[in-house]
Amino acid sequence: MSALPAPQPVPGALLLNEIREQPAAFERLLEHSDEYAAVAAVARERGLDLVRMVGHGSSDNAASYGVYAFGLLPRWTALRDSISLSVYYGAEIDLRGSCIVALSQSGETPDVLAYVERARARGAFTIAITNDPNSALGAAAEAVLPLAAGPELSIAATKTYTTQVAALALLAGHAAGQGPQIAEGIRAVAAQLDEALPALERRLAEVALAFAFVGRMFVIGRGPEFATAREISLKLLETCRVAAEPLTATDLIHGPLAALDGLFPVWTISSDDESLPAVREAAARAHAAGATLVASGPAAREIADAAFSVPVPKPAVTLLSPLLSVVPGQLFAWALAQAKGLDPDRPTGLSKITHAL
Amino acid sequence: MSALPAPQPVPGALLLNEIREQPAAFERLLEHSDEYAAVAAVARERGLDLVRMVGHGSSDNAASYGVYAFGLLPRWTALRDSISLSVYYGAEIDLRGSCIVALSQSGETPDVLAYVERARARGAFTIAITNDPNSALGAAAEAVLPLAAGPELSIAATKTYTTQVAALALLAGHAAGQGPQIAEGIRAVAAQLDEALPALERRLAEVALAFAFVGRMFVIGRGPEFATAREISLKLLETCRVAAEPLTATDLIHGPLAALDGLFPVWTISSDDESLPAVREAAARAHAAGATLVASGPAAREIADAAFSVPVPKPAVTLLSPLLSVVPGQLFAWALAQAKGLDPDRPTGLSKITHAL
Repeated sequence: MSALPAPQPVPGALLLNEIREQPAAFERLLEHSDEYAAVAAVARERGLDLVRMVGHGSSDNAASYGVYAFGLLPRWTALRDSISLSVYYGAEIDLRGSCIVALSQSGETPDVLAYVERARARGAFTIAITNDPNSALGAAAEAVLPLAAGPELSIAATKTYTTQVAALALLAGHAAGQGPQIAEGIRAVAAQLDEALPALERRLAEVALAFAFVGRMFVIGRGPEFATAREISLKLLETCRVAAEPLTATDLIHGPLAALDGLFPVWTISSDDESLPAVREAAARAHAAGATLVASGPAAREIADAAFSVPVPKPAVTLLSPLLSVVPGQLFAWALAQAKGLDPDRPTGLSKITHAL
Repeated sequence: MSALPAPQPVPGALLLNEIREQPAAFERLLEHSDEYAAVAAVARERGLDLVRMVGHGSSDNAASYGVYAFGLLPRWTALRDSISLSVYYGAEIDLRGSCIVALSQSGETPDVLAYVERARARGAFTIAITNDPNSALGAAAEAVLPLAAGPELSIAATKTYTTQVAALALLAGHAAGQGPQIAEGIRAVAAQLDEALPALERRLAEVALAFAFVGRMFVIGRGPEFATAREISLKLLETCRVAAEPLTATDLIHGPLAALDGLFPVWTISSDDESLPAVREAAARAHAAGATLVASGPAAREIADAAFSVPVPKPAVTLLSPLLSVVPGQLFAWALAQAKGLDPDRPTGLSKITHAL
């Protein structure tokens, strides 16, 4: 008797499982809240109020969120630093007043590691936020904070992106003396997401069918939700081969608006904060140009003329809305890849750890 | 006898004229070198080494260059600051150690103006770099530096983008005590560009024909040339309705590589500096994925397997290569718009001054 062939993996099963694991991943991160508090205390004691974040891909998208988390909570200036400026061009910038936050799921991204080694040698306080504290990055940094997201098997990052966002909020919260409130907010989001996920999965599978022939999109967000726009765009690029570009509401009308027509859909992310009027107006301009609108985010219902509206629950702490807002985009990428006949678990030409270029 | 109808404008004539004016615009900017030196001296005297740049669209693209100009010349940290963080979210960040560089062609961009007013009130040294020193922005900032590019009539910015890049190099050069060398370098670039332009115009008109049916592209640059990648992408979006996305060489392999195929061309910008190996490798990966490659920049000949190679002269000061590298992209946008039957002087839905959202 010949052996039966091994069962074939279901396309997209890895990705979907990890999307579903996000509420549990948030809970696991929160078990480390005291470690985040201790690292924030060191930064405060040393009087550091300039945060240089480094990372690639989804990690760099999470850093876009960090600009707002550090700016709005401890009122620190946080920037997505240029890795190439120091690692490749050898710029000798004084880093003694800086706190480095290096973001890498694997902890093995070579130029992030090289950046941290240099920064530490130059007197910066180096913090690694990684899913693998035993990685090379964990060894290189002065302080290591775990993501605790659990192993990520899908090539497209989902739960490690959202736990990075939560980790940055937690670190910024502790730096501002509001750690417990932020931790409680993340816990509440975990519960909201867990409850919302089944309906979101069904809804996005349905929405995605309408986009099976789309090859390009804009994704609009502003403020803390610009990170969400970047992350949704990256998921669409890598899993669906859609040329998706993230834009702020203001960027859209500085040129890209001219590219829109009925074959160029626009995905908007809106939250109940100071950015809502800008996103509403950008959506109206895109609609007037003929674009099909998808409205997502906690304030999705505020977007007029959306062909598809995919709201998520409103979080108790508004700054945490990106933890919820990105999920419809993750599910859309998962469903759209399949509608296009692609396997979202096997993007062409990608591997899990990006080696240096 | 009835009057003859007024002559119709030639499509793209405004844009082409302004592309051609760039060498003269650089010369006019250099007449103000002493003013740039005086402002840099103030920043040095006040011990400011954190530069916050703000602007939208092409101005924000120029700011991407500023990160490298300030990082490599005076070794200052320069960041593209979030306008929304302070203007819309009201983040109260300590700005007393900061130097603000506000970039606006018109000097009338409302949220850039609001940012400068707040920053000045909070103790920052505010510098406006604008084509209209008599604008509202010119009045709001403590120091005003002219671009002197002359009136820009085309909606798509060209000469004001390149003079912003030159202005940032000049300011950074003076801050580093190397103002005369940078000024001399810009003067040499003006002469090189003036000589190269006629052949570039002919060449790009020819190259563009091959892309008449293209709807999406990636534009790859790294280091100082990432600004060029951003600016070429924006020109393609606004004049040609091409979904063009700028990526660093490393970003490309963090996901977007998966989207490439034979219908998704990649434009690479390479310069003879530390970024060349990364751009070469990214180009090789894109070629392996089936993408048609266009190679531009001073080191275009170093890119293997390019279907189209469009080199520009090598500048005496390597850091100034973006002044030359962007020009083939400007001309490509001008020519491609016409190949697609669009008028590059009249992008759909855009106006010259972007109002606040």
